[in-house]
Amino acid sequence: MTASPAEFEARLRQIGAERYHDKHPFHHLLHSGGCTPDQVRAWVINRFYYQASIPIKDAAFMSRVEDPALRRAWRSRIEDHDGTDQNEGGIARWLRLADAVGVDRDYVASKQGVLPASRFAVDAYVRFVRDKSLLEAVAASLTELFAPKIHAARIEGLLANYAFADDNSLSYFRNRLSEAPKDVAFGLAWVLEHANTAEKQDAAAAALIFKTDVLWAQLDALHAAYVTPARIPPGAWQPGTFLRAADT
Amino acid sequence: MTASPAEFEARLRQIGAERYHDKHPFHHLLHSGGCTPDQVRAWVINRFYYQASIPIKDAAFMSRVEDPALRRAWRSRIEDHDGTDQNEGGIARWLRLADAVGVDRDYVASKQGVLPASRFAVDAYVRFVRDKSLLEAVAASLTELFAPKIHAARIEGLLANYAFADDNSLSYFRNRLSEAPKDVAFGLAWVLEHANTAEKQDAAAAALIFKTDVLWAQLDALHAAYVTPARIPPGAWQPGTFLRAADT
Repeated sequence: MTASPAEFEARLRQIGAERYHDKHPFHHLLHSGGCTPDQVRAWVINRFYYQASIPIKDAAFMSRVEDPALRRAWRSRIEDHDGTDQNEGGIARWLRLADAVGVDRDYVASKQGVLPASRFAVDAYVRFVRDKSLLEAVAASLTELFAPKIHAARIEGLLANYAFADDNSLSYFRNRLSEAPKDVAFGLAWVLEHANTAEKQDAAAAALIFKTDVLWAQLDALHAAYVTPARIPPGAWQPGTFLRAADT
Repeated sequence: MTASPAEFEARLRQIGAERYHDKHPFHHLLHSGGCTPDQVRAWVINRFYYQASIPIKDAAFMSRVEDPALRRAWRSRIEDHDGTDQNEGGIARWLRLADAVGVDRDYVASKQGVLPASRFAVDAYVRFVRDKSLLEAVAASLTELFAPKIHAARIEGLLANYAFADDNSLSYFRNRLSEAPKDVAFGLAWVLEHANTAEKQDAAAAALIFKTDVLWAQLDALHAAYVTPARIPPGAWQPGTFLRAADT
């Protein structure tokens, strides 16, 4: 039976309540100040791969959209990450965080040393958006519903617990506090309008679950590789390497 | 500079010596008898996803090959896994292993409960073969070079340490002892012939490294989820569930 838009929105929000990565132990460790400098660096290096892939994902989405109005509404996501004349963009802001935690920004930007499991998870998301229905692609983006809360907690936790944290290094997260709600208001309304059968609602819910898996798997890989008992896969970043010149 | 075929083969074998998943601690645990029944079941459930995806990968490869002779040489890989009138095939044999370790074979075959990180890694392999050059696709299959040793060690270790292990339950591995060398002799000769520039040799070596990452990431996910301190991701198989009716 097709749920009402309000019921279906509640179902989507419940997925976040149960599966969003704010519940992962790595985030508790990070936000509470429990991470070593190298663990913070490992997070910055690996999460960069996700950041850098988001505009590729959004371009893949737009390449499949026939409706100019939908493409126009989506375009700001790419601008937010890649930048404009007036806005350096989220990728550049993430590299300022890399500077602040003392890891070489060129190494981070090179994407070498990223955990294979992070790559596989992020690439799965890009491919999902390339291959699945537009409804599933938009629904997968709705993890942004749950992001402002984690970004606010992260800013507060990092500022309280780490010397590297200041307005400059955390500018990525401050910007997302205003960007994400704008994107997700559009995405949520679009999904509620287009998921107009029970079958489409099931597909959209499954897409959102898939996306929570993508986020969770990245933290699982990070935790397994760099938190005791650490088990770093062959070829991945080794603690203490590729530090900023000023820090070595 | 282009290496000679013998030098290039040595380079490929060195990748296996450094990165093949026989070095992963989960395999040591499994082969030495250190796994609990539920840890063995988790391995059987997750590795099934890889087994079931291999013929899909091989069909994707063949769909891109113009040369009938190459397709004909490759076809037996699909037969080995999917079966023929005379041969039940590797997927059916893997389900006999599922029976033997006491997990419900329908649950295993459903692929529910597979760790998202295993899915992402295996799907990355299927996509790699679909998207990259034929040379890279064949080179990625060359982890089979290193497989007979691990299969022999596995048969010996499982027989010595687990009550479920017998000729019936381990028939998958016994069959691979003869199938894999046949496949890899062809694949290795093909790669050595076609990787005839330094650039192609680098691409083939990178493809083999990629494939070792795919295998390693599956065991990392298994280890993180089911070996102490276990951290099972949302939605993945929970120990003690979906056991064979006779065992519950």
